[in-house]
Amino acid sequence: MTVVGVIGGGQLARMMIPAAINLGIELRVFAEAEDSSARIAASTVGDYTDSDQVLAFAQSVDVITFDHEHVPLENLARMVSDGIAVFPPPEALALTQDKTVMRAELARLDIPQPRWTAVDQEGPDAPELVGGFPCIAKLPVGGYDGKGVRVIHSWNDVRDWLDRGPILLEELVSFRRELSQLSARRPSGGWSSWPLVETRQDGGVCSVVVSPAPGITKGQAAEAQDIAQRIATKCNVVGVLAVEMFENHDGRILVNELAMRPHNSGHVLTEQSVTSQFEQHLRAVTDMSLGSTELRQPSGIMANIFGGAPVEKWAAVSEQFPEVKFHSYQKAFRPGRKAGHLVVTGENATELIVVAEKARDTFKGGEPWEKSHE
Amino acid sequence: MTVVGVIGGGQLARMMIPAAINLGIELRVFAEAEDSSARIAASTVGDYTDSDQVLAFAQSVDVITFDHEHVPLENLARMVSDGIAVFPPPEALALTQDKTVMRAELARLDIPQPRWTAVDQEGPDAPELVGGFPCIAKLPVGGYDGKGVRVIHSWNDVRDWLDRGPILLEELVSFRRELSQLSARRPSGGWSSWPLVETRQDGGVCSVVVSPAPGITKGQAAEAQDIAQRIATKCNVVGVLAVEMFENHDGRILVNELAMRPHNSGHVLTEQSVTSQFEQHLRAVTDMSLGSTELRQPSGIMANIFGGAPVEKWAAVSEQFPEVKFHSYQKAFRPGRKAGHLVVTGENATELIVVAEKARDTFKGGEPWEKSHE
Repeated sequence: MTVVGVIGGGQLARMMIPAAINLGIELRVFAEAEDSSARIAASTVGDYTDSDQVLAFAQSVDVITFDHEHVPLENLARMVSDGIAVFPPPEALALTQDKTVMRAELARLDIPQPRWTAVDQEGPDAPELVGGFPCIAKLPVGGYDGKGVRVIHSWNDVRDWLDRGPILLEELVSFRRELSQLSARRPSGGWSSWPLVETRQDGGVCSVVVSPAPGITKGQAAEAQDIAQRIATKCNVVGVLAVEMFENHDGRILVNELAMRPHNSGHVLTEQSVTSQFEQHLRAVTDMSLGSTELRQPSGIMANIFGGAPVEKWAAVSEQFPEVKFHSYQKAFRPGRKAGHLVVTGENATELIVVAEKARDTFKGGEPWEKSHE
Repeated sequence: MTVVGVIGGGQLARMMIPAAINLGIELRVFAEAEDSSARIAASTVGDYTDSDQVLAFAQSVDVITFDHEHVPLENLARMVSDGIAVFPPPEALALTQDKTVMRAELARLDIPQPRWTAVDQEGPDAPELVGGFPCIAKLPVGGYDGKGVRVIHSWNDVRDWLDRGPILLEELVSFRRELSQLSARRPSGGWSSWPLVETRQDGGVCSVVVSPAPGITKGQAAEAQDIAQRIATKCNVVGVLAVEMFENHDGRILVNELAMRPHNSGHVLTEQSVTSQFEQHLRAVTDMSLGSTELRQPSGIMANIFGGAPVEKWAAVSEQFPEVKFHSYQKAFRPGRKAGHLVVTGENATELIVVAEKARDTFKGGEPWEKSHE
């Protein structure tokens, strides 16, 4: 039997478990804590920055994959030199660990992206290269969900970061909306994509996903797919690849971020697509043929739940919304934390968004979620 | 958090795990062996006929439910008298443990069923009551999947059983096909059903399910639902109830068997329905509101895999059939054993049956499954 080891015990590892159960793959999780979201499959609880610990874990499985992109590259290199299959491979994962490395690689591949420059000191040239202030400043390493990203109006706004090391400056793109292109690639070469989705953020955090993204032209769909396929192929990505994109007011697409694992923007596919992103990721990293990405229903909406997602609250929501599906991450309450999500699928996206948001508000006790994430 | 305890570690317990993960319910399984199908959730490995062992397990959870109907009623009675929630309750489960008890109860409720009689010795009266030889003989207790059921042409064919105790004789119904009505009921009263499905048997074992059953009249659909609802309500069933039925050549429906748990005939719903039977069972036994039973796609086909269902064989099948979904039970090979199943959903049942059966034959190496269960 194939044994897949997942480093990281978050909700992404958790949601790989049902797919592994169906496929008859044994999933073992290297979790960071006893009460991790993926605890039912945790075979090790340890520190993923500890090379010896992760190597011992890796030696107990057939292939290593990830719930997050934070495992130090030198630990991954050690696994590879020990003959362990690591997917996505470290050279691909490197792009998601350091945004400057990613920007340089996308530039090399001639992929459309916001103007950018890496800087380690103040000066007039850098802002000019990205269209001047205001612009975006990013910490190259460790940011997520709006953390490590600022809109800056002058060097004053970013001096604390610059004191600590180089940062990335990016053009402040005046975008119409954000999109995400999910796809997957297996090591022997097959690549498969789902339709482009629209992601709606609140405070830099994904709040709602509309699948497929409404009003996409054939040209945009083809361009998004081409971008994703080129990144997957040229960078030797294995597993699910999420390419987050801006759609400019003029319709042009620019790449914002990459993730090489199942991604929040793809959760809706579990209900909507013949193959979920979690199943596709497991098929890809075990080099199995990729499943059909056809949609079972024309529209799907995903709404994130923040703070806490206890089953008791869900029970109240479900009385009113029998058609809404719930995914609990079984995480302890923390203000603003992604704690679960809701999905509803059907014919009409506009109507489904109303249902999903009402259901989510009911979860919170009737208060609209946008007002705060707690 | 709600903790649901499942007695029995078979594929039904296994397939409850993804639903529990989504709902944020903790599932603990009392398994019969270390290598049970549901081993990832097994908190106890023991003997379910041992009253002390199952009671200790029951005391560690909020509600007890079942993967099979073989737990001795006295063990369940002891749980109930200890204040433990047991769903379905023992008085309902009793109908599935003894077919004579079930026949008598269905007669009391005036539910249409084949003519029947319980006998403990040879004689001319009993066969006459069921329309004469040939007729069906059943062991009242312990039969499943065609085991404990015989077509008999004379008393000679059943003398070995009669030597051991009373048996059930039933009319040999000349039926057109077999149907199954899946539904679920929660203890506070809500009841919800899926569309009637057709089950196709091979050697007394379910081989293929067509969902919904083609060519069902409105009257038949209403009657099947009425039968299921009356059984669920009058017998205080909690959880999923499967009512297996014969459709006679004249269109009349007769009840063949009952199961009070997720059932092989409902596996197709995991892909096809907004709420799977496994999720619905967990919602019901935790007295949560029942989920929508709408179908995401108009047709669904399930085909059982017999013998063994290793992921390696599946990998070969999946190359040719990207639209087919696989469910492995991770059981050791045994000839004829249900080892997994395939599901395909879409628009046209006739086309989908061809796909499902071809995929299943590919699983076996190209040989049609009907020839034997190896």
